Parts: sequence; structure tokens; C-alpha cells
Amino acid sequence: MSSVSIPPPECMLRPLEVPVRYLFGPGPSNVPPRVLAAGGKPIIGHLHPEMYEIMNDIKKGIQYAFQTENNMTISMSGSGHAAMECAVFNIVEPGESVLIAVNGIWGERVSEIAERMGANVHRLVKAPGGCYTNKEIEQAIEKHKPVLFFLAHGESSAGLCHPVDGFGDICRKHNCIFLVDSVASLGAAPIFMDKQKIDILYTGSQKALNAPPGTAPISFNDRACNKMFNRKTKPVSYVFDMTHLSDYWGCNGSPTRGYHHTGPVSGFFALRESLAILAERGLEESWRKHKEVAAYLYKGLEDLGLKLFIPDKVRQLPSVTTISIPEGYEWREMLTYIMKNHQMEMTGGLGPSVGMV
Amino acid sequence: MSSVSIPPPECMLRPLEVPVRYLFGPGPSNVPPRVLAAGGKPIIGHLHPEMYEIMNDIKKGIQYAFQTENNMTISMSGSGHAAMECAVFNIVEPGESVLIAVNGIWGERVSEIAERMGANVHRLVKAPGGCYTNKEIEQAIEKHKPVLFFLAHGESSAGLCHPVDGFGDICRKHNCIFLVDSVASLGAAPIFMDKQKIDILYTGSQKALNAPPGTAPISFNDRACNKMFNRKTKPVSYVFDMTHLSDYWGCNGSPTRGYHHTGPVSGFFALRESLAILAERGLEESWRKHKEVAAYLYKGLEDLGLKLFIPDKVRQLPSVTTISIPEGYEWREMLTYIMKNHQMEMTGGLGPSVGMV
Repeated sequence: MSSVSIPPPECMLRPLEVPVRYLFGPGPSNVPPRVLAAGGKPIIGHLHPEMYEIMNDIKKGIQYAFQTENNMTISMSGSGHAAMECAVFNIVEPGESVLIAVNGIWGERVSEIAERMGANVHRLVKAPGGCYTNKEIEQAIEKHKPVLFFLAHGESSAGLCHPVDGFGDICRKHNCIFLVDSVASLGAAPIFMDKQKIDILYTGSQKALNAPPGTAPISFNDRACNKMFNRKTKPVSYVFDMTHLSDYWGCNGSPTRGYHHTGPVSGFFALRESLAILAERGLEESWRKHKEVAAYLYKGLEDLGLKLFIPDKVRQLPSVTTISIPEGYEWREMLTYIMKNHQMEMTGGLGPSVGMV
Repeated sequence: MSSVSIPPPECMLRPLEVPVRYLFGPGPSNVPPRVLAAGGKPIIGHLHPEMYEIMNDIKKGIQYAFQTENNMTISMSGSGHAAMECAVFNIVEPGESVLIAVNGIWGERVSEIAERMGANVHRLVKAPGGCYTNKEIEQAIEKHKPVLFFLAHGESSAGLCHPVDGFGDICRKHNCIFLVDSVASLGAAPIFMDKQKIDILYTGSQKALNAPPGTAPISFNDRACNKMFNRKTKPVSYVFDMTHLSDYWGCNGSPTRGYHHTGPVSGFFALRESLAILAERGLEESWRKHKEVAAYLYKGLEDLGLKLFIPDKVRQLPSVTTISIPEGYEWREMLTYIMKNHQMEMTGGLGPSVGMV
């Protein structure tokens, strides 16, 4: 038998130090003590009956937050990116056509994910923050005949909240699944999954839900389930396979649940608590509060002579405010100054909006 | 604008209840208060300099736990299954040959993952708990010419700790990457990544490391990096792409780090704390303690007239003890009785060992 040759690292003999910061970036956001306390509770098994109850509560909490009655409603054991890959991997088969609205970073990400798994990707590109008309989308769908159409409701890289009304009807007419990203917007700006005919909706835990990062609610309606459970090939990822995930979350009607992977038990405790706060406060109050605080911020910024990147008031994302970089300033220097002198995190653009906001 | 039609769920108005349980299943294990407290600290941004420091500490802690000097050492933002998919997705290109030792559930899982991404999978099947000789492996490698050979060091479904000496040399001789799963064994049974010439090693946070589930240490040596960074096609998953993950973890030498996904900040705090405890206690002491406690348990079980599933003492996994089901008993009934009357979690077999242990 060999012996230990690599000694314990000295850095590990120092205690963990975590500074207190005001998180004013697009996420993660500051987490209320109540949610932190829930995440610090003792661990139980991922397949215990009490854990199933907590997962059932989470499912109901997501149904409320999403305004959906979809049975196929779960949380991913991962970040919003995991939900994004899960949606694409399960719905699309290699060679199938997908249409992606690219008006910021999230459309780019989904395009990259879909290309890697062998989809035939069609991008509908606009400048960061650009909006699509129903006519533009219908024409593109008629042309490319996609099985999936992606739109970001909250395009955080531009600070845009994109309207979603009407797209669901167009997708139904053309036998296409309507996939919406609400990572940056859910809980901050109104969205109604069922009424707005969204077939797949996902979000992240670490934005307006105020939970730690690491879990990501996602919901599929019957149209989406019909497509993903009648495919010819298995999804490329075992970890993100909804056949197994729906079994783990008790969505498939079976009295027993299968072992698939070990879910982030503490993360689920915290997610449940954050969804409970949303349920207690109410969606309307959460939307109202975000709008009120955003309006107060906009006013202050305008008083300082700063310009909002999204000028159209109804399209401003209440959770993420983007400021056009004032002429003559270097954005990285400004962010470093604010963090150093005010302990406040702000961030620059992402993807196509880098150097703009 | 629509209005809210789905009311807040009543279950969410009840406080979160988490029972205290003795977790004697194969994982998750009970988490020490110190690690729970670390995981409950206030959130900071995933791209803050202080977070990079914590990630650097984690990297050093994993290098110690794995006994490796590999620079390409990170934690996945996910469970052991995420590490498993990450290894296969990054190393193997579609059509390439892989060889998998299947003597329990983990070899089956890796086979399924590799098949889904288009690998040419060769299984070397034994009964649960069966061991492979160096000669058997060399013959199979000569025959199938795999780019990757997988072996579980801790085959938890059988309670087996498989020797790994010699396989690394065989893999080098035949230009094959040696991938080892130590999810159930790391910290409980000795393993020396560099000395034992393991090219990729991964584990989970929620077993002998005693952290909550949701993070998974993984390390790649230069041979593995050489293969995965010189591939012709992109890995099928963006989320698990090591090009991006190594950038996020500061392994690629660049002074700045790229945004890839939002890591589980609380999960990383907890993982750092659990690795700190291991560094303070020392690997030798952790191995000794697991062995001592296991021996005490084996003695008690034998005194009760129970039989261990792995009779060979040197191949028993100190972290997971498997008991042959006594004749005339139904394993599910026994587990339910123990949980109900003693608040202790135990579990049955997994995959091929269901009904046996």
C-alpha cells in the first residue's frame, strides 16, 4: 500500500470567510435569513417519504409561481442552464428544426446547446434588447417549420422583458413547442404559463425567488409531454432525461419513485422556503413591489443624468435594470470602484451586450 | 393583462418540517453542524474574487483528498452523476470505443451514458461484487481498443472496494484513459490518484465527505486533458463542457474567468468546510476510523448470525456494508420496520444487486 505524499493544504486550516455583500448584479441575489436557515437544516435522505412531501410542496409552489396546473412540474438539480439543456435535450431529436429568438445572450446559449445535440438551428437575430412582432415569428415558423421556438421572457443581458402574448397560439397552429426562459423575470414580472399558452417554462432559484443558486424550476404541459415522451431516440443526457426525472418527482402516476440521482437536499429545503415566501406574499404583491422599486431606481438614475438601455417603459425588466454606459467611462473601472467603495455588486453586459450596459 | 387564477397552495403556509434521521444508507450521510453552518452563510456572487478564493481552496482540498497534483481539478455543480456524464462527454467522441467494467450499478450507468452519446460500448460483465484481474482487463483492452476504461473503486450496490493497482499501467500501454468512480469510497478507503495512475477520478460530496449532496469533485491529469482538449467535435453538453468549466475554475491559466453557469454558492461553502475537516483530521486517520468502525459493525452483524455479501475482508468497502438478505425475509419489510422503529435509514440493493443485499 502506498502512503500519503501530498500534504494537507495550508489554506484549509484557515476558517471559511464569507464577506457580506449587497448583491445588485443580475443574480444571485441576497438570500433572506429564513431561506438560509432552511438550507442549513439537517440532511435527510433524497428518497425518504418526508423528502417526497417537500418535493410535492415545491411542485405546488412552482405551479403557483408559474400559474400552471401542469402535472409535469419539477425542479432541476442544477442551475438555469441545466433547465435550458433539459428542455432542448428532451424535446428535440437530432436533425429536427428549431427556431431561436436571439436578442441577447440567452438565445445564443440555447442555439449553442441545440447545435451541439444535432438540431437544425435557425436564429432570428436582433440587436440586444430588440423585440419581435407576432408576424415576424409566424413568418419564421412557416419558413423553418421548427419543432421548438425559444424566447427569453427576461433577457437579463439587455434588461428586456419581452411580451409573450400571441406566440403560444402561433406555435399551436404550426405544431411547434413554445419554450420560454424566465430565469431573470419570474416573480418580478407577470407571466401566466397556462393562459399565455407556454408549453415549457423554466426559471432559476437565485434571482427573484431569492434562494441560493443550484435549483431550477421547470414545467412541461401536455403538448410538450406528448412530444418528449413519443420520441424515437433517447435524449443524449441520462442526467437530464425527463423520463427519469418525472419518475423521481412522482409525476408519472407510479406509487413508488425510482432512484435516478441524488438531489440537492439542502437546495430543495431552501427552494421550498423561497416558494413559501412567494405564496405568503402573493404574486401580485411581488410584481407590484418589484415595479415600484424599479421605478424609484429609474427615477434616481435619470436624476443623475444616466440613461436606461431599454427606453420603452413597458418593456423594462423590473428585476434587472440596464444602464447605457455614459460616454468617456470604462465600465470595468466603474464596477470595480463601486464594489470597492460601496460593497455593492453590479455587473456589465453579457454576450452581445458587453460594452453596452 | 391577465390576473392570477391559481391560488397560493395551502401546503406552503405550513412551515418546513425536517425530521432528524440517522442516515445509514449509502448516502447522503449525516452532515456535521459545522458543514451545515458553512452552507447556511450569506450568499456572495459566483464571480466575486472571494468566491474564486474559496474555489481555489476547494481545488487544493480535492487535490489532497485525491492525492494528486493535477491542475485540472474542480467541483461539478451537480451530483456524482453529473461528474460521470462530464467525464464521458468530454473524453469520448461519437463512434469511439469504450470498455466498462460492470459488476454492479455504476458500470451499468456509465454504459448507458456512453451509449446515449454515440460511443461504441463494450461491457465486461460480472455478478455484483465480482472482481477483475489485470489479465482480464488487458485482454479486453487489446480486443476492443477503447479510448476509455471505466472501473468503480467503490461499487456501493455490492459493498465492494475494487483494487485499482496495475490498471493504470495497462491503460497507458494501450493509449486508453483510465476513469475511476470513487463516489462511495473517497475518504473511507485509500486511493492515490497520481501514484495509481488514474487519469480521471471523481467523487460525490454527500458520502464520506459528509457534505450535502449537489457538488462532485473531479480531476483530470495531463493524459486526460490531452485527449479531451484535442477532440474534433464539441462535447454534446454545454453545461458539462470542460473547456468552459476549467475556465470558470481558473484552471486554464487565464487571469480572468469566464461566466459559464451560476455555481451552487452555498454548496461550495459546505464542500470547502467538509474538505477542511478532512485536511485537519488527515486522510490516514479518516481511512483508519472508517476501517475500525466497519470492523466493529461486521463483528456485531456476524454475532447476530448475519452474513456479509462480500466475504473477502480486503475487498469490503468500509463506507458501505452490504448484508446478504437472510432466507425467509422480505428486504423491503425489514427496511420499513427499521426506519419506523429505529429512525435509521438503510437501503436495499441497486440495479443488479436488488433483492440480494
